[in-house]
Amino acid sequence: MNKTLIFGHKNPDTDAICSALAYAQLKNQLGISVEPVRLGSVNEETQFALDFFHVKEPRLVHTVANEANEVILVDHNERLQSASDITDVLVIEVIDHHRIANFETSQPLYYRAEPVGCTATILNKLYKEHGVPIPKDIAGLMVSAIISDTLLFKSPTCTEQDVAAARQLADIAEIDLEEYGLRMLKAGANLSDKPIGDLIAMDAKDFQMGHAKVKIAQVNAIDTNDVFSRQAELEAALEKVIASEQLDLYLFVVTDILNNDSIALALGRETQAVEQAYQVTLVDHKALLKGVVSRKKQIVPVLTDRLTKASRA
Amino acid sequence: MNKTLIFGHKNPDTDAICSALAYAQLKNQLGISVEPVRLGSVNEETQFALDFFHVKEPRLVHTVANEANEVILVDHNERLQSASDITDVLVIEVIDHHRIANFETSQPLYYRAEPVGCTATILNKLYKEHGVPIPKDIAGLMVSAIISDTLLFKSPTCTEQDVAAARQLADIAEIDLEEYGLRMLKAGANLSDKPIGDLIAMDAKDFQMGHAKVKIAQVNAIDTNDVFSRQAELEAALEKVIASEQLDLYLFVVTDILNNDSIALALGRETQAVEQAYQVTLVDHKALLKGVVSRKKQIVPVLTDRLTKASRA
Repeated sequence: MNKTLIFGHKNPDTDAICSALAYAQLKNQLGISVEPVRLGSVNEETQFALDFFHVKEPRLVHTVANEANEVILVDHNERLQSASDITDVLVIEVIDHHRIANFETSQPLYYRAEPVGCTATILNKLYKEHGVPIPKDIAGLMVSAIISDTLLFKSPTCTEQDVAAARQLADIAEIDLEEYGLRMLKAGANLSDKPIGDLIAMDAKDFQMGHAKVKIAQVNAIDTNDVFSRQAELEAALEKVIASEQLDLYLFVVTDILNNDSIALALGRETQAVEQAYQVTLVDHKALLKGVVSRKKQIVPVLTDRLTKASRA
Repeated sequence: MNKTLIFGHKNPDTDAICSALAYAQLKNQLGISVEPVRLGSVNEETQFALDFFHVKEPRLVHTVANEANEVILVDHNERLQSASDITDVLVIEVIDHHRIANFETSQPLYYRAEPVGCTATILNKLYKEHGVPIPKDIAGLMVSAIISDTLLFKSPTCTEQDVAAARQLADIAEIDLEEYGLRMLKAGANLSDKPIGDLIAMDAKDFQMGHAKVKIAQVNAIDTNDVFSRQAELEAALEKVIASEQLDLYLFVVTDILNNDSIALALGRETQAVEQAYQVTLVDHKALLKGVVSRKKQIVPVLTDRLTKASRA
């Protein structure tokens, strides 16, 4: 029971999985015993990276308090995005690159957040600060996380630090950044044969914004038609989630990774927040969000502002 | 208006003042223009350190949004302990060593918290990470902050990192740690001629614990009688604050810096939380808290647990 688990957010993306593995490796090198775990299934993009570098995925857990009293969070901090029983364990560290919200501790902790594009970019610093060399396979996972979070450096969340870290890590991993990056992104963007149930759970995150309970899912696509050719089926699935989880807004964002735009499908009673935030009109529940590729930088802040103002009014 | 302010908590202690000055110096060395300010008056201990190292105190401000759109917080994060209009500005960085609570952003930020005894210990790392040498006077202020927060290394919050940082900084500042440290602590612990109004505001912090609004003040004393010889006057002043700020608990802690114990005076409707938390009986509203010297480590967590459970019950 005296065990420490490291994990990323629910519906894990490549950063959530790879940063848990990479930080666990660093901790273990420093003589601190921790186990990396995951809160959900591994998506195709992440599986491509794990297979490429011959690393086994972390163990799947549904709750954490039954087997650990201390945990380390990577790539998230918000309660709604973490293990369902997160309030029953002690969070001793957080390494993250998101806003801080719905997070509270009774004790001081190590909290390292930086406004960069990817958690792995911060981990690259931590390895250096501790003077620990990064093994080839772990470097491969870390550069995969940066490619994923920054859409191969095209997202507005990408900073010079992310690009520099990715270059260093690609050298250690002995890969060609562009060639590997595009292959990995494409492996995750093939949505045509994905069951709708899998599609909507792939990378969905929950947010409390003012009084509104909001879920924002984002998937990468090479052809957005792979998703919207099944719009009726998709909407039925989303409506079911809205009802069962009592959501005020479900925003399903399909990001075109070749053109760097997104098409958003919005359902729920608060869809006008989307129209106001982006000055668009939803047609058939959809709108093109020109140039929008980052949930963190281009969606969460504007919707939070919108819905917080609405709550105050 | 395009200005960045750096400041510590209300009722600033030596760490809140000196870390604002030290981090502002680092930022300015890095070419980032910021101004250190303070949210309250400078106490005698801090004044001793400022005078000793010939540094002027930061400018006093009452609100921040009227002159800055971005701020950096040091030595605190909780809303109740910050500028009264903190929600009207963008917090771009936090350097802290406390629990995280009642803190929320809509954007990613740089947040660096470590479970060490003093903010200045973290700043010592940041200077190194950026390769910037620490000037003699700034090193003097930083070591003063560490001495103050750790009660010259006797507090349970003190870590090996604090001791090592203090030694390095004392070398740069060219002081004898023990001799300077005791002189500085004594300068702040002479309470006999202090007006009661000043005494209760010296180092008071507000906390939301469950449903309870709690204020915890802490003063250092060489002789606790300097305070309790005026208990009736003290209680009248505390009761006034309880009424005007609608507090559920006011805990006034007088820490004996020679024997490393504290005497707590508790007033308000939730005083039984103190008795339960420490297994003591308040006599004449007072109890000896044996070995308790740290508000952060030995008071806030146990009272939070107690009052959070009470709220749930």
